[in-house]
Amino acid sequence: MTEKKGKIVIALGGNALQDTNSSGTAEEQLEVAKRTCEYIVEILDNYEAVIVHGNGPQVGRILIASETAKDITPVMPFDVVGAMSQGYIGYHIQQALHLALKNHGNHIPVATVITQVVVDQNDPAFENPTKPIGSFYSEEEAKEMMDKNGYIMKEDAGRGWRRVVASPIPQRIVEIDTVKHLCGSSVVVAAGGGGIPVIELPDGSLKGVAAVIDKDFAAELLAEQIGADILLILTAVDKVAINYNKPNQIDLDLITAAQAEEYMKQGHFAAGSMLPKIKAAIKFVKSNPGRKAIISSPYKAIEALEGRDGTTIILE
Amino acid sequence: MTEKKGKIVIALGGNALQDTNSSGTAEEQLEVAKRTCEYIVEILDNYEAVIVHGNGPQVGRILIASETAKDITPVMPFDVVGAMSQGYIGYHIQQALHLALKNHGNHIPVATVITQVVVDQNDPAFENPTKPIGSFYSEEEAKEMMDKNGYIMKEDAGRGWRRVVASPIPQRIVEIDTVKHLCGSSVVVAAGGGGIPVIELPDGSLKGVAAVIDKDFAAELLAEQIGADILLILTAVDKVAINYNKPNQIDLDLITAAQAEEYMKQGHFAAGSMLPKIKAAIKFVKSNPGRKAIISSPYKAIEALEGRDGTTIILE
Repeated sequence: MTEKKGKIVIALGGNALQDTNSSGTAEEQLEVAKRTCEYIVEILDNYEAVIVHGNGPQVGRILIASETAKDITPVMPFDVVGAMSQGYIGYHIQQALHLALKNHGNHIPVATVITQVVVDQNDPAFENPTKPIGSFYSEEEAKEMMDKNGYIMKEDAGRGWRRVVASPIPQRIVEIDTVKHLCGSSVVVAAGGGGIPVIELPDGSLKGVAAVIDKDFAAELLAEQIGADILLILTAVDKVAINYNKPNQIDLDLITAAQAEEYMKQGHFAAGSMLPKIKAAIKFVKSNPGRKAIISSPYKAIEALEGRDGTTIILE
Repeated sequence: MTEKKGKIVIALGGNALQDTNSSGTAEEQLEVAKRTCEYIVEILDNYEAVIVHGNGPQVGRILIASETAKDITPVMPFDVVGAMSQGYIGYHIQQALHLALKNHGNHIPVATVITQVVVDQNDPAFENPTKPIGSFYSEEEAKEMMDKNGYIMKEDAGRGWRRVVASPIPQRIVEIDTVKHLCGSSVVVAAGGGGIPVIELPDGSLKGVAAVIDKDFAAELLAEQIGADILLILTAVDKVAINYNKPNQIDLDLITAAQAEEYMKQGHFAAGSMLPKIKAAIKFVKSNPGRKAIISSPYKAIEALEGRDGTTIILE
């Protein structure tokens, strides 16, 4: 094994696991994961790597199946659905990466660690839940569920009522020591979907909560805590742009955290899309001088890492 | 941390996670897991431990939910359902054991590793699948599913038709190096439900198959491969018995592998219940002199380990 250049955390967005308009079958997901892994496998020659992935469509489908079958078998709580999605997606990344590594002549194992992430129960996000999850319901059903289960439900753009949950900030990765211990001897898949959200009770026990942790924020926290050199966020665009989708769009190659913050203030980045990635990138590069964050697509990952594509964010 | 006495693999049966007549809610499972972990936590002071658990009722429920919602979201293949159940149950064991360890003053982390187990695609079990999984169907529906999906379906004791899958012998634990690497620095939860069954294709890739690997056989293989000293199988009875449930029932304290084989030949152990545990115990103690296997209940685990309860199987 050659000497590694450093540690990297790779955050895989939804497009790394599913094509647009995917029907959501597991077979399709495995195929897309295999394609993604072929693009990123070369990185694993040079870096000790942890992979963090999203899970939005997958938890949605698991929850909808569970809610649909509610008269036959108990509905699974949302934290459990998150744990299930980590098993599901982690397993597919293991298979896909195993094959890509094998074809590439690299025999490092791939391991998925089921990961809990502690959030603050006083996080202001809990006062204003915004993330819709699960099935659509009629107003009557929704009101019954609000009364009976204490859910918060909102009308969703004329399509019906849906449960909404909070998106609190990740505070602590419970399994961080395990991830650190494995890093380097295995490619680790961890904090899938941003981690299973848990709160810490006064007696020190952990309790799952219904919430969605942004996977880019979780990847950033994990990258800080394992002492990563690079946070590589792979998404649906090759580069970050200002004036996105306008005639005067400008793609960004290399920017400082200060420039990124300025663009952010100017409103260039969409909430729930590029904004959390930029925020995660800024936080990471500010956490320690010499760290860099890169935002690109899976298909340009290698070029982006070499500075030939993608958007690199540095401290100064 | 005190010097450890050795390595142990603890195989948790269904009763360690669910009470008889459980309604199958996640909340109930977590409570039972917490109770079980209080009983076994002391073992972790003295031994480096890997925990293997069953997943029969859980995969059944996940699959039934998925099949029930088939017109709304794609049905998950059985290997994926196994991966989901590892995430679900592993997460609960992590929480339950974290609390028990904390109350006990032991600060070792707990980690779940999503585990694939290779089976031989020529295993004779595939010629005669016997394990029923998922929902009941009418004869007409069953015949359609057999034609369309290539499933094997059988009439199940007058209750309707059900899919059956094979129960092949585990050959290799794909993530064994990761488990070995973690063992001692974390309590590892691995090979849940016997592992996700995969076959190895000629190109070296792994492919999930619809099968159920006996969790006691998987625990035995794992115990051999990590060099465990003890295989502790926890189930619904405190001791193994001959003439079980008859007036002349005799509970066994300490037996040799040869005695166990003799009792096995005489038909004392029920297939699908005590028989695989006895087979796993015999295989383990024969694999290396000095190894012992213990069969007991979670509630008597400590006493059994000290030779004051349970059934101990030794080579001679």
